[in-house]
Amino acid sequence: MEQYGTIGVFDSGLGGLTVLNAICAANEGLSIIYFGDTARVPYGPRTPDTIAHYARQDVRFLLSKKVEAIVVACGTVSAIALNSLRDEFDVPIIGVIEPACDAAAKVTVTNHICVIGTHATVNSHAYSDYLNANYPHCRVSGVECPLFVPLIENGFREDDPITQLTVERYLAPIRDTDVDTLILGCTHYPFLIEAIKRVLPGITLIDIGVALSEALQLTVPIKRTQDKNTVEYCFSDRETDFKRFDFQHLKNLPKGQIFAVNIEKY
Amino acid sequence: MEQYGTIGVFDSGLGGLTVLNAICAANEGLSIIYFGDTARVPYGPRTPDTIAHYARQDVRFLLSKKVEAIVVACGTVSAIALNSLRDEFDVPIIGVIEPACDAAAKVTVTNHICVIGTHATVNSHAYSDYLNANYPHCRVSGVECPLFVPLIENGFREDDPITQLTVERYLAPIRDTDVDTLILGCTHYPFLIEAIKRVLPGITLIDIGVALSEALQLTVPIKRTQDKNTVEYCFSDRETDFKRFDFQHLKNLPKGQIFAVNIEKY
Repeated sequence: MEQYGTIGVFDSGLGGLTVLNAICAANEGLSIIYFGDTARVPYGPRTPDTIAHYARQDVRFLLSKKVEAIVVACGTVSAIALNSLRDEFDVPIIGVIEPACDAAAKVTVTNHICVIGTHATVNSHAYSDYLNANYPHCRVSGVECPLFVPLIENGFREDDPITQLTVERYLAPIRDTDVDTLILGCTHYPFLIEAIKRVLPGITLIDIGVALSEALQLTVPIKRTQDKNTVEYCFSDRETDFKRFDFQHLKNLPKGQIFAVNIEKY
Repeated sequence: MEQYGTIGVFDSGLGGLTVLNAICAANEGLSIIYFGDTARVPYGPRTPDTIAHYARQDVRFLLSKKVEAIVVACGTVSAIALNSLRDEFDVPIIGVIEPACDAAAKVTVTNHICVIGTHATVNSHAYSDYLNANYPHCRVSGVECPLFVPLIENGFREDDPITQLTVERYLAPIRDTDVDTLILGCTHYPFLIEAIKRVLPGITLIDIGVALSEALQLTVPIKRTQDKNTVEYCFSDRETDFKRFDFQHLKNLPKGQIFAVNIEKY
């Protein structure tokens, strides 16, 4: 089976760093280019056309950096634009939906899976389409949680009462159902994992980054080119504010150089 | 004094509709083009360079529609890029900062004014620079409220407990000061005016849209071209979701045609 060299990983912003973190935790010696479209984040509330247009520019930028495979570390792009990206570009492209659905279908007992995500992700029906096609015995529900990303991006920790009240608001209705498996359909949501467990004790949570990183070497085998993982961090806004993030969730990221990218040119 | 015809009004998204509403409430018979950059909203967390680049594209689009004067109905662009827009373009351009500061300086008794806004607005020091230069007896404080826009954009009303807790979190510290006048330095904030009054009773609130609309005819006299106000609504994302908004705050907006704009071309 063909092996691939440098991989590109992209997201609408910083949330994809949770996927990158999971990839780095599960692998050694990879060479990675990360692109975060911080000048145009968030993608979630935008229309499918706009999301697909932005995603094509993100891929073109990564290809200009000579990557040989691409990880779509963005729940929204994976839900909206994965097939059109695969049609247009001639490199392996892996998204978060297929691995997450495979992992959820493996563990559910009630066969009722719920996906939480942005407006665009939930309304795309990408998760239910894949689950219905591959696991027809499973039922799928979806819940939009549009305030989760702004809370995380603005430094509200998961033990903050405002965060807890918001998690309770969005997710409490799931307690009245037979859902036993919850897909965290957005790369930001691992930052809220303890708050979600408090509202939904006993439900199995699927972290899309972890699911993807476990599937990665099976679907897109990547060459180990060195001893340690290396990452170039590229962002579309000049100074990207990492400090907002709670880095205890991102312990496996190697240090790396940070570059600014004019993404409209691609 | 020269009189101007069609005016262009722009904002990063839908928040500028509160300014447009105030303009329509105070004037009759205007012809207006409104542009909301819903494909790239919000501007507030982005860097000054990116904000200025987006603002130039917004102005170029409005000039392509033959507007003769421009209202920057965006707190962030007014704070970051107003002077560079005035240097580059040869039409009158009015922002929200100068009228809001003039109105605040007129009513303050303690001479301590506080500005609330996005990260970019508060860190620009645009309000304090203007107030210090023109009203040196006034002191100015600033408080960032980055979650207010996402709350409003995601349909959280001002009487929602999550909204109230967030307003309390950001604004309660102002109660321990001698601030007596609060500039709502973001066009979304009028949607929260009752929640803000509850946390800060007795403080005078300056709505930047109302302050601008009162100053408009003095600084940029506009021709009354017809009986009623007419507005063309243009947005950079294909389907812009108006329903999220609480339209009781926007009663003076006339109905009008909606157009899609590819803003990256400008």
